[in-house]
Amino acid sequence: MSDGSNIEQLRQQIDQLDSELVNILAKRAQVTKQIGELKSKTGTPIYVPEREAELLKKRRLQGKQAGISPDLIEDTLRRVMRESYQTQTHQYTCVNPSIQKIVIIGGDGALGKVFVDLFTRSQYPVLKLEKNDWPQAEQILADADLVIVAVPIAVTETIISQLQNLPEHCILADITSIKQKPFKAMMAVHNGPVVGLHPMFGPDVSSLVKQVVVVCHGKQQQHYSWLLEQMVIWGATLYETSPKSHDQAMAFIQVMRHFSSFVYGNHLRGEDPKLQELIALSSPIYRLELAMVGRLFAQDPSLYADIIFSNKDSFALLKRFRDRFDQALSLLEKGDKAEFIKQFFLTGNWFGDYAKQCLKDSKKLLLKADDSRL
Amino acid sequence: MSDGSNIEQLRQQIDQLDSELVNILAKRAQVTKQIGELKSKTGTPIYVPEREAELLKKRRLQGKQAGISPDLIEDTLRRVMRESYQTQTHQYTCVNPSIQKIVIIGGDGALGKVFVDLFTRSQYPVLKLEKNDWPQAEQILADADLVIVAVPIAVTETIISQLQNLPEHCILADITSIKQKPFKAMMAVHNGPVVGLHPMFGPDVSSLVKQVVVVCHGKQQQHYSWLLEQMVIWGATLYETSPKSHDQAMAFIQVMRHFSSFVYGNHLRGEDPKLQELIALSSPIYRLELAMVGRLFAQDPSLYADIIFSNKDSFALLKRFRDRFDQALSLLEKGDKAEFIKQFFLTGNWFGDYAKQCLKDSKKLLLKADDSRL
Repeated sequence: MSDGSNIEQLRQQIDQLDSELVNILAKRAQVTKQIGELKSKTGTPIYVPEREAELLKKRRLQGKQAGISPDLIEDTLRRVMRESYQTQTHQYTCVNPSIQKIVIIGGDGALGKVFVDLFTRSQYPVLKLEKNDWPQAEQILADADLVIVAVPIAVTETIISQLQNLPEHCILADITSIKQKPFKAMMAVHNGPVVGLHPMFGPDVSSLVKQVVVVCHGKQQQHYSWLLEQMVIWGATLYETSPKSHDQAMAFIQVMRHFSSFVYGNHLRGEDPKLQELIALSSPIYRLELAMVGRLFAQDPSLYADIIFSNKDSFALLKRFRDRFDQALSLLEKGDKAEFIKQFFLTGNWFGDYAKQCLKDSKKLLLKADDSRL
Repeated sequence: MSDGSNIEQLRQQIDQLDSELVNILAKRAQVTKQIGELKSKTGTPIYVPEREAELLKKRRLQGKQAGISPDLIEDTLRRVMRESYQTQTHQYTCVNPSIQKIVIIGGDGALGKVFVDLFTRSQYPVLKLEKNDWPQAEQILADADLVIVAVPIAVTETIISQLQNLPEHCILADITSIKQKPFKAMMAVHNGPVVGLHPMFGPDVSSLVKQVVVVCHGKQQQHYSWLLEQMVIWGATLYETSPKSHDQAMAFIQVMRHFSSFVYGNHLRGEDPKLQELIALSSPIYRLELAMVGRLFAQDPSLYADIIFSNKDSFALLKRFRDRFDQALSLLEKGDKAEFIKQFFLTGNWFGDYAKQCLKDSKKLLLKADDSRL
């Protein structure tokens, strides 16, 4: 038999094995669906880190014994589990069935929709209050048990100031990307329970599993603890901090990055290199960095304008970045490689072990990007 | 039966299915190993895009019919195929068995090692010439068929200038991150075949499959065409361009990004926020952006100093970036959101459809990052 027909035969074996693999994944999806239904009946969280860790450990060991890479097994199973979190989540347990009315102000907005959907799938009665509904606001808000403000940053405070007549027992919460101002406004306008939330994800998440929600405690925590429990049921990880610490961290996390990407995009436009050539020439890591800039400009500019312009700490921070950029430029102008290397080490020390972790994690992720030639 | 014990039973079914899945992957690895051995005998490239596309299409269809996500199937199979490219590559076809001697100058360096390994696994006789070997250089280089310069940028030209006595038939190539200067030096020093190469990947790639190698044609192309064919056998995608275009593109792709990351890292060190809090608060996309900065500082500073300091076009480019940063800062100072949004749209237009593509691709990749909570 020729080598060519041998290869053909072996390829048929691959096709056969891949077909079996698809069948197993289909059967697995059936079982996880049943688990999801039981979980939603019993109020068990969708995501149970210990179960996941145990499952992976067993299969990694089996893979090792079978002479195949445990990392291959883990990556495959994690991808499969992601899918099962999504398919398991048609219905969620309702941790507080006594709730009669939830109002989401801005529930038609990108992130508002996510919460309308999550509450609805947890059997809560949800109403939305949109821009044109304010003439009926009194009626919509009457007897509300929970009001969530999910409107653009620029109008958040104004909207909150109009909520002075909420029922005393009603929980008032917001999901704005900045926390100090909305938090202060909520504390001032409402005598009942208040909590500030910042869901650290965009509207395109497939589920809340493994996503972070920042919690800034306001008042009467015991009355809104069910809401936090509900988010844990959805899969979220809660992170408690003060509005001030939150905003300072966001000046780094959100403002710095978006502003830099904005300038970098403008710079590319100004320089006007051949984009296709840049893409073709880029290795996965540069293509990823270019994609992180490019993606900004496919999104809503006013959202980013709001994030950047509303964080008052950020202007001084950005100015200091510019000064450090100038300092580094002068090293380049003087050809002072020794000082560059010295600074490099100092910053490496500042990052500590995290730098190595970044390298390790990003390598893994870049391999995943390579899989599909992102 | 209680819901709890029901869940336990279903989990056992999952474990059973996962165990079958591991067995299938093990069998598949056996078959792809055999395919790899046949391919290395017949000189067929490891990576055949058409076969991959056809295989994925069939399984996506099967997944759809079985009611599970075709994307789940595709992601899973791509991950499995990545593994098989790695395990298939114990041996490569040698496209030019008449080659008697390949010398890699700097073959003990990070990227030099990758090429020593690839040539060796393709049955070429490979010698290395390291810093301390120069007293024996004449002997090592005698009768060489191919000499590849794989030394740090800063010494590349000096090393090349010492290669004036290569055999006339010998191919001279370099793999430096800049191209104009080494290319000019090679063309001047050697009368035989010359080609400039820039492998657009780091030493940690698992294989050359889907990786880009930039090719700058020098002279006597017909004599080094086997070398390019060999790289295609390894899985590489070749991209032909001139040294000048290459360096201009790299000023954007490499210098701009590394320099910005360097400044961003210094900025974080100077501001000294609580790194653990930043990480805990970050959603996948910010964690990824932070990781892209952090990873730089886990690497060799002199490599990056060389890349940044040796590209003469880059200083002016970086200065113009700084000016654009200042312009954007003044928008922020004046609170001119309207102009910010206008610029945003202009840059979005410049990116064109690529911005949307970036958003789509990065979403996919972020989901993958979510899988492991990078």
